[in-house]
Amino acid sequence: MYALARELGAVAPEAFGLELASFFVASQEPITRARISIEEYGWSPIGATGYSFARSGDPVRTTTVVLDAGHGASVVSGVRDLVVLNTTASEFWGYPKDEYTTLPESEDRILATAVSARWRYRPSAVTPAPAPAPGEGATTGWDAAFAAAKAALLAAFSGTYSYSLQQTLYAMGSRVLADVPAACEVRLALPNKHHYLVDLAPFGLDNPNEVYNAGDRPYGLIEGHVLADDAPDEGLAWT
Amino acid sequence: MYALARELGAVAPEAFGLELASFFVASQEPITRARISIEEYGWSPIGATGYSFARSGDPVRTTTVVLDAGHGASVVSGVRDLVVLNTTASEFWGYPKDEYTTLPESEDRILATAVSARWRYRPSAVTPAPAPAPGEGATTGWDAAFAAAKAALLAAFSGTYSYSLQQTLYAMGSRVLADVPAACEVRLALPNKHHYLVDLAPFGLDNPNEVYNAGDRPYGLIEGHVLADDAPDEGLAWT
Amino acid sequence: MYALARELGAVAPEAFGLELASFFVASQEPITRARISIEEYGWSPIGATGYSFARSGDPVRTTTVVLDAGHGASVVSGVRDLVVLNTTASEFWGYPKDEYTTLPESEDRILATAVSARWRYRPSAVTPAPAPAPGEGATTGWDAAFAAAKAALLAAFSGTYSYSLQQTLYAMGSRVLADVPAACEVRLALPNKHHYLVDLAPFGLDNPNEVYNAGDRPYGLIEGHVLADDAPDEGLAWT
Amino acid sequence: MYALARELGAVAPEAFGLELASFFVASQEPITRARISIEEYGWSPIGATGYSFARSGDPVRTTTVVLDAGHGASVVSGVRDLVVLNTTASEFWGYPKDEYTTLPESEDRILATAVSARWRYRPSAVTPAPAPAPGEGATTGWDAAFAAAKAALLAAFSGTYSYSLQQTLYAMGSRVLADVPAACEVRLALPNKHHYLVDLAPFGLDNPNEVYNAGDRPYGLIEGHVLADDAPDEGLAWT
Repeated sequence: MYALARELGAVAPEAFGLELASFFVASQEPITRARISIEEYGWSPIGATGYSFARSGDPVRTTTVVLDAGHGASVVSGVRDLVVLNTTASEFWGYPKDEYTTLPESEDRILATAVSARWRYRPSAVTPAPAPAPGEGATTGWDAAFAAAKAALLAAFSGTYSYSLQQTLYAMGSRVLADVPAACEVRLALPNKHHYLVDLAPFGLDNPNEVYNAGDRPYGLIEGHVLADDAPDEGLAWT
Repeated sequence: MYALARELGAVAPEAFGLELASFFVASQEPITRARISIEEYGWSPIGATGYSFARSGDPVRTTTVVLDAGHGASVVSGVRDLVVLNTTASEFWGYPKDEYTTLPESEDRILATAVSARWRYRPSAVTPAPAPAPGEGATTGWDAAFAAAKAALLAAFSGTYSYSLQQTLYAMGSRVLADVPAACEVRLALPNKHHYLVDLAPFGLDNPNEVYNAGDRPYGLIEGHVLADDAPDEGLAWT
Repeated sequence: MYALARELGAVAPEAFGLELASFFVASQEPITRARISIEEYGWSPIGATGYSFARSGDPVRTTTVVLDAGHGASVVSGVRDLVVLNTTASEFWGYPKDEYTTLPESEDRILATAVSARWRYRPSAVTPAPAPAPGEGATTGWDAAFAAAKAALLAAFSGTYSYSLQQTLYAMGSRVLADVPAACEVRLALPNKHHYLVDLAPFGLDNPNEVYNAGDRPYGLIEGHVLADDAPDEGLAWT
Repeated sequence: MYALARELGAVAPEAFGLELASFFVASQEPITRARISIEEYGWSPIGATGYSFARSGDPVRTTTVVLDAGHGASVVSGVRDLVVLNTTASEFWGYPKDEYTTLPESEDRILATAVSARWRYRPSAVTPAPAPAPGEGATTGWDAAFAAAKAALLAAFSGTYSYSLQQTLYAMGSRVLADVPAACEVRLALPNKHHYLVDLAPFGLDNPNEVYNAGDRPYGLIEGHVLADDAPDEGLAWT
């Protein structure tokens, strides 16, 4: 792995995973399938030294490559720990209720979640590798696709007037499919990080959406998949 | 606490802690001392909605306020989880060795650490509160001091050609004292996050400072205090 | 959930999950499938008060119930964080090597792992619930099966003279299938927690398997499934 | 450190810390003070192989040794992560209230906490080392003192009918001083792990102390020191 890093230099994690998987499947006869998962953490420059960096707050970039001698290669990339919050533009009401329902309806609430998103690339985008733009390095395709997907997630989250986190989830997945043609499926897991308005009436105070308790239990974990109409079969991508 | 938050609005954590501590010591006869610790996490705007935010990568801002009926108030603020790295401009050699020394000397190494720093404010900066600049709110003093201290830590880390992490620690603490006159003492804890150059010779490859193993054990935890020559007595600040 | 807990009293997590899933699928017309995951932590009595307990070191007991209007119910139970170690009776040699292999062969090593195991119950064991033994409560079936599975994992780990962690994995899975007839498939994930013998020769000392460095990277994560020959189709159990 | 481990064999962490600190202070002229902190995790045998173990649920055993060329040696040992719970025999009422008090009084509540305790040994117990009982190894003194202190904490927790966690803290600290003559001071930190009785009235159910929500915020962190009347000066023990 270290030796391969030396040989490849700084490439996108997807490109590194494909090379490493190929090595395993090609080098040992009994190995017919390899699955490689990689996480990438960001760094931001400090000052102008050129060699000083601070760990950035970018969410963790993930990728999982599956290479099978029979099925070919698949790539699923994603982000996790992308914590986002809208202080307004979110309502939740009109949902089915039964005798156990305690959640009050709200016409103006904080919407917050920690986005875990993974998108599957079309096989056509994986073999051969996404073409780099002229004048740019071999990693451009993967990096540009990742940047576009992350931007799509953020834009859909902030740009959606939300009547439920489920609706926001669908908007986020659809936006990735719209903005990243190389992706054909998006899977999202969005824990609903509730912010409860504190009742200050016992203290003789009003609370016009100012002071919240950031509770974390109970909470809803909203999961969903958004699939392009023309998505190819998933093969082994999610195994 | 929630009620106080409603009453004070968005103030610096130091100001909030001083008010909360004052409430406890003033409101109940048997309470003569209060210690309040607060952590603040940063958020960055998403797009232009004005209400959309993502958790930023800013390091955690901390403060501990001690208010004692007899000793008065003290404030110790800080940051933690500020992960920084210089890819060069660091050497380590000429240190004392004995029969158990295994660490090789290096004339060009990666220097990386996760900064935990706390600085004690002078009593004169605490009572009364640091004066806000004209036209600005009551939180300006604390926020400006925090920003200056954090900038000083980063500038000293990136700007110091380092012969040891101990030297860098001293430079960081001294820089905070120089740039933040309201601070009189800095305590730092810097785990030495070693990056080991991988030996690729067994694979027929050189490794000119390209591929590292980011080990985390064993490691040195470098701790030190930098005290201003005219620092007042610490009183109960660090209890 | 709290109300259901009051109604059911102290039942096995599997029984609780099946009841809760049934409630969701039966109570709301648009809901056709429910998946419930539960974790259980153990407590040990302190002294003889009858009401005093300490959190025990038992590994976390897990269960996931999937109930689908069309497919019926499936139950996958397991343990995680079961850290085990053999100080000897483990060898590893004769494995395929290539130009990148650095792992030395060993004829006497420490074998350590943190067991995550999940076993799927046969549909016949889920509907109806495993019959409790005469004179015992309704939870007996699930609890007895869990206890037997955990005992099987420990017995196979300690009782297998190991030539590889893969071999031990197979022994552990097979033993669960042999000792728990209600289980038809076992999935295991075993991180190889390496203990490296420290080279003390530079200090003029021998090291006859006495002093180890408990490294955690790089490591192998050994995963495998053991399936009974007559295992029914997995349906939605692992989704 | 590894070499010292080989030379000393399996000794108590306190004994290992004292030896390691002595080495540092004695071997390098500029070093006049050493502080060593050690954590020990427990293992329980599996079966009868003699070489198979599972990580036990014992709380983490800690020790910090400070050796100063001028002040001599001090030893502070402790436990952390000792999670304990009484399901009854705990009340909390009659406490001071003000306009911000919301906590309801209770005459029968669950009392739960995660004990972090550290006790300082008298200098006379440190130099020379506690004498082992006849026929036993050199580690007996430290191990026996640790076992007695842990047993004292558990006995005091379960045996105290509690009107407040503060009262229980005092009982725990006092019991350690009573049962471990070599200890002269105990410092405890007890987070109050609240278990809130769930209001099931909206669902037409009573809840006679059956179903709780194990909340973790807000909570009180109860800290206190219990000092023997004849405790010697603490010197550098707690630095």
